[in-house]
Amino acid sequence: MQRIDVALVGAGRMGQVHGPNAARHPGLRLKYVVDARPGVAEAMAGQWQAGVAGLEQALADPSVGGVLVCSTTDQHLAHASAAVAAGKAVFCEKPVDLDLAKARQAQPLFRDARFLLGFNRRFDPHFLALKRRLDAGEVGRLEALHIVNHDPAAPPPGFIPTSGGLFKDFTIHDLDLARWLLGEEPCEVFASASCLVDPEIGRLGDVDTARVLLRTPSGRLCVISNTRRSGCGYDQRIEAFCSGGRLAADNVHTSTLVATTAQGALAAPIHPGFPERYRDAYRAQIEHFADVVHGRAAPAIGYDDGIAALALAEACGQSARAAAPVHP
Amino acid sequence: MQRIDVALVGAGRMGQVHGPNAARHPGLRLKYVVDARPGVAEAMAGQWQAGVAGLEQALADPSVGGVLVCSTTDQHLAHASAAVAAGKAVFCEKPVDLDLAKARQAQPLFRDARFLLGFNRRFDPHFLALKRRLDAGEVGRLEALHIVNHDPAAPPPGFIPTSGGLFKDFTIHDLDLARWLLGEEPCEVFASASCLVDPEIGRLGDVDTARVLLRTPSGRLCVISNTRRSGCGYDQRIEAFCSGGRLAADNVHTSTLVATTAQGALAAPIHPGFPERYRDAYRAQIEHFADVVHGRAAPAIGYDDGIAALALAEACGQSARAAAPVHP
Amino acid sequence: MQRIDVALVGAGRMGQVHGPNAARHPGLRLKYVVDARPGVAEAMAGQWQAGVAGLEQALADPSVGGVLVCSTTDQHLAHASAAVAAGKAVFCEKPVDLDLAKARQAQPLFRDARFLLGFNRRFDPHFLALKRRLDAGEVGRLEALHIVNHDPAAPPPGFIPTSGGLFKDFTIHDLDLARWLLGEEPCEVFASASCLVDPEIGRLGDVDTARVLLRTPSGRLCVISNTRRSGCGYDQRIEAFCSGGRLAADNVHTSTLVATTAQGALAAPIHPGFPERYRDAYRAQIEHFADVVHGRAAPAIGYDDGIAALALAEACGQSARAAAPVHP
Amino acid sequence: MQRIDVALVGAGRMGQVHGPNAARHPGLRLKYVVDARPGVAEAMAGQWQAGVAGLEQALADPSVGGVLVCSTTDQHLAHASAAVAAGKAVFCEKPVDLDLAKARQAQPLFRDARFLLGFNRRFDPHFLALKRRLDAGEVGRLEALHIVNHDPAAPPPGFIPTSGGLFKDFTIHDLDLARWLLGEEPCEVFASASCLVDPEIGRLGDVDTARVLLRTPSGRLCVISNTRRSGCGYDQRIEAFCSGGRLAADNVHTSTLVATTAQGALAAPIHPGFPERYRDAYRAQIEHFADVVHGRAAPAIGYDDGIAALALAEACGQSARAAAPVHP
Repeated sequence: MQRIDVALVGAGRMGQVHGPNAARHPGLRLKYVVDARPGVAEAMAGQWQAGVAGLEQALADPSVGGVLVCSTTDQHLAHASAAVAAGKAVFCEKPVDLDLAKARQAQPLFRDARFLLGFNRRFDPHFLALKRRLDAGEVGRLEALHIVNHDPAAPPPGFIPTSGGLFKDFTIHDLDLARWLLGEEPCEVFASASCLVDPEIGRLGDVDTARVLLRTPSGRLCVISNTRRSGCGYDQRIEAFCSGGRLAADNVHTSTLVATTAQGALAAPIHPGFPERYRDAYRAQIEHFADVVHGRAAPAIGYDDGIAALALAEACGQSARAAAPVHP
Repeated sequence: MQRIDVALVGAGRMGQVHGPNAARHPGLRLKYVVDARPGVAEAMAGQWQAGVAGLEQALADPSVGGVLVCSTTDQHLAHASAAVAAGKAVFCEKPVDLDLAKARQAQPLFRDARFLLGFNRRFDPHFLALKRRLDAGEVGRLEALHIVNHDPAAPPPGFIPTSGGLFKDFTIHDLDLARWLLGEEPCEVFASASCLVDPEIGRLGDVDTARVLLRTPSGRLCVISNTRRSGCGYDQRIEAFCSGGRLAADNVHTSTLVATTAQGALAAPIHPGFPERYRDAYRAQIEHFADVVHGRAAPAIGYDDGIAALALAEACGQSARAAAPVHP
Repeated sequence: MQRIDVALVGAGRMGQVHGPNAARHPGLRLKYVVDARPGVAEAMAGQWQAGVAGLEQALADPSVGGVLVCSTTDQHLAHASAAVAAGKAVFCEKPVDLDLAKARQAQPLFRDARFLLGFNRRFDPHFLALKRRLDAGEVGRLEALHIVNHDPAAPPPGFIPTSGGLFKDFTIHDLDLARWLLGEEPCEVFASASCLVDPEIGRLGDVDTARVLLRTPSGRLCVISNTRRSGCGYDQRIEAFCSGGRLAADNVHTSTLVATTAQGALAAPIHPGFPERYRDAYRAQIEHFADVVHGRAAPAIGYDDGIAALALAEACGQSARAAAPVHP
Repeated sequence: MQRIDVALVGAGRMGQVHGPNAARHPGLRLKYVVDARPGVAEAMAGQWQAGVAGLEQALADPSVGGVLVCSTTDQHLAHASAAVAAGKAVFCEKPVDLDLAKARQAQPLFRDARFLLGFNRRFDPHFLALKRRLDAGEVGRLEALHIVNHDPAAPPPGFIPTSGGLFKDFTIHDLDLARWLLGEEPCEVFASASCLVDPEIGRLGDVDTARVLLRTPSGRLCVISNTRRSGCGYDQRIEAFCSGGRLAADNVHTSTLVATTAQGALAAPIHPGFPERYRDAYRAQIEHFADVVHGRAAPAIGYDDGIAALALAEACGQSARAAAPVHP
């Protein structure tokens, strides 16, 4: 397989996940790392025999076939638009933007783009296995879903003001999963949310604990369970209730070890956070992006999926504030 | 231990559970079986060396210390009232009645009664273990609950018209569990319900699939998940999300057997229905009732608990019909 | 169902298990309790409206259809022989005796007896489920077995001298299970044993930790794992390796509760000892004995099974002492 | 990190595991692939931008710091010796050789070598977690081990004659694990083996099903369970019995998916074979080898470990043939 050059834009938290995965892929070569913060691009570039460049330089290089947009959320749209305009295949971290109107305005730019949105959970092998068996109808027709997405520990309060709030920052993953698995667009959204974890989050106008109830036109029901602090690691589960039984994708534990004593049988903790829990999903995502870059596949998740999830997240916020269902 | 005589009123589905448990208890003697249907009382009485009697006769016998009311739902209130008026200790199957106003009217009669309401789940050893660890604060403060109560298979349509509907007949168990575990009375009820299992249930004006979202004054959230047909047995689970982690009481399987083949690891089915799943709960309930009959304990679940759960069930129905939250 | 009278001989540890189960059975009536120790028979008799009697009196009563022999091991053979000679159906706790020659000598007395030996594990619903699926060939032909039988904590040293030693007292259960499940008599026994738990057990000439490897004529292999102190409760498992996969009957936990925290997922302890772990097995055993008493069933486990297991236990001891395989 | 060049010798089954892992490692560069079979070296070299070379050429290149010996078993010793003599750091697949005398003769050559033997299981994160907790004494002193190593399906009969037989080819992994975990050299080996899977394996003089019982000087006991065909995937488990309870490293399933229907709860299959089951172990092994190549670590498993495991495997064969324990 020939390698195609890619550029990484943003070498922060998510860039440090995706950059090395791209560098290790036999079909990609990490040619540029773009990051304005001093030393950040250099550190990653040095590790993987890549160069450091500005965005314009990277986009201007015709050998660059793909761009990974891992910059801060407020820059996603600008960076992705520029890369798409330059004719590159683009992988972009979620969300496309926090402003639904602005994101909708940009929609035409992405109409025919090779644009892959980073809803990583769709690439998780456990959730994928669930999706395949649902689609195969192995346990009958889907009737209801239960999605658990619990962060291990509350973020520092400083993160809250620019996060977009719980629903747009965090629940958005589950709203995408719900759309993907339900096979119907939810037509009713009811959200109830509290601030139980950290009162500082409440003072900043956000919530940290929520339950969302989605309803589809055919009467399917979906519950989303969120908290910023599970107390027990990164709790990530999906349960699908079907006419013939149920399918559950459970948490992944750090090992299979069980210590049985008079106190009980202690299984190893579940994964503590996203880098470990979704390690295989991140790899599979880059595998898929390499296929997109090489022209072997169309992107599985597009810009419109980003818009749809964002619209549902906005509806969650409205519902929670009004204590009433919203019909998006 | 001396045995005290008890009478069983109603030898149908639930009477066949409670009657033998009372007969086997070393502190009780099943003296009378009351059931107007031909042969029904006789069959049970013959099996357990008891006599057959009418309600008046049984209540008039001063040796009878306790009465188990297992008649049809529409007779619960009349039979229980008569037994209480006769000074007996009374065990009564749930619900106290389907009509909230009527049940509230009767409330004074039960003020000082030795009256135990049959919310059997509170006696389940698994749920009890969860309750005890919650109360001990072992994993911190309770923040949210998830209660799964899925019947194995839809009842015959003939059952629906007199059932009181999904919420009063079935969800009422979960509403009682929620009150018991949350330690607060829910102040907001939102229910979304569908008819996905059997269209005949819908034609009769009922629903068969529901999700209920309760909220308490302190912001605790509780999700109740119901279906009339799980497709996989009697799915009975509780999960409590706390500040230090989570506590889960999972399903009970029919055996610990696991068959591992190339197709996967097949664990034995979960219990198919209530008699097996709550076998130990039913025994413990009668143990507790024996303590009440002998004057060693006050009833753990009273008439007022029945009213409170019934009021929440009524709120669920209102919410589902109006597609809006209700504040009971 | 008419009740038939039974007598309990020995109201000690095992008598306190079997006596109440018989008393609660709708087809049996506990008429006599026989126990020479002051107050012991009286306590049980008072609880269950039974009488206190000597063995002769109980055996002479023609209304007595069955006798439960739960006396000390050195009296099993004498009490069981007397009851059989009196024409009673007999349930007898294991082992039949500790002396293989003596037990073999008595064999003719039991030839046509209605004699049920108390190898309780054969009545455990989990092990029974495994046996049924093995017999049905659901995962192919049986090739090997792994039996784990670990006591929770070492017995007081005073128990050791009269116990018969680890193999005759404890391993004998597993040897019976092996015979039952393998469907062939083992032809080679190799045992390796140590004293790792309590040096006092070693000073008394016994061992507390052992592994036994059985081989059958067709080449099937069976491993038995024993310890007097598991440190984690009463560890009771069977695994069957077959041509199409494996069947495992795992431990029973005290509840389904799991507490998940940052330290891991702590499942409830496994049962701490035999009364809880084999509660259902003991009930089923008495159910079967009631069928034998009523003439509805032939005993599932006979005197010859006791002899065969005892002979294997003796072979284990010889093998461990000689550090060489023994061909029984 | 600077990359150091390595050469892969043998691009067959195991070379295809280790070669890509080395090529992906940021501290290694796959410079040469050595394999005499037409096209084999070329295929791998093309995929990873490496060159094709003969062994002499690769060893003569001073830029080559490490060599991965993945040739056929009969060539391990020759290739590893040559690489060690050339001053390279060497990773060598197990076993060092099938002939114990020959392997012992070569021992002096490896005295001070940077030689890492490929007992991959020691790098498995699950087994490593068990080892660490054993060493930390978290559940007390180790008393006994149970190692399950079951291949998914019997190899083609053509593999048997050059395999070295079940004990040297397969059990050797478990014998290494036993030495590693027991912390003592076994002093007694008893093996019982059968041909139950494929009679052709028996005709070729080998066995396909075995149980091995090891005993250490301090009386610890270890059972090894082997079959060539589990019928249910690659069954790889370790259980350690300690004074305070037990530690178990269980199988890894292909996903966390569980489908619960009326037939039971079907968990996803366990991994079907070594490439998936030990994927992380293989990566960690190459991580460690990279540390050895960079001079940051001494090899965790040396030539002498290979000799010790081989001697135990030979003892297993002797014991099974003689039906008697062997003291190695």
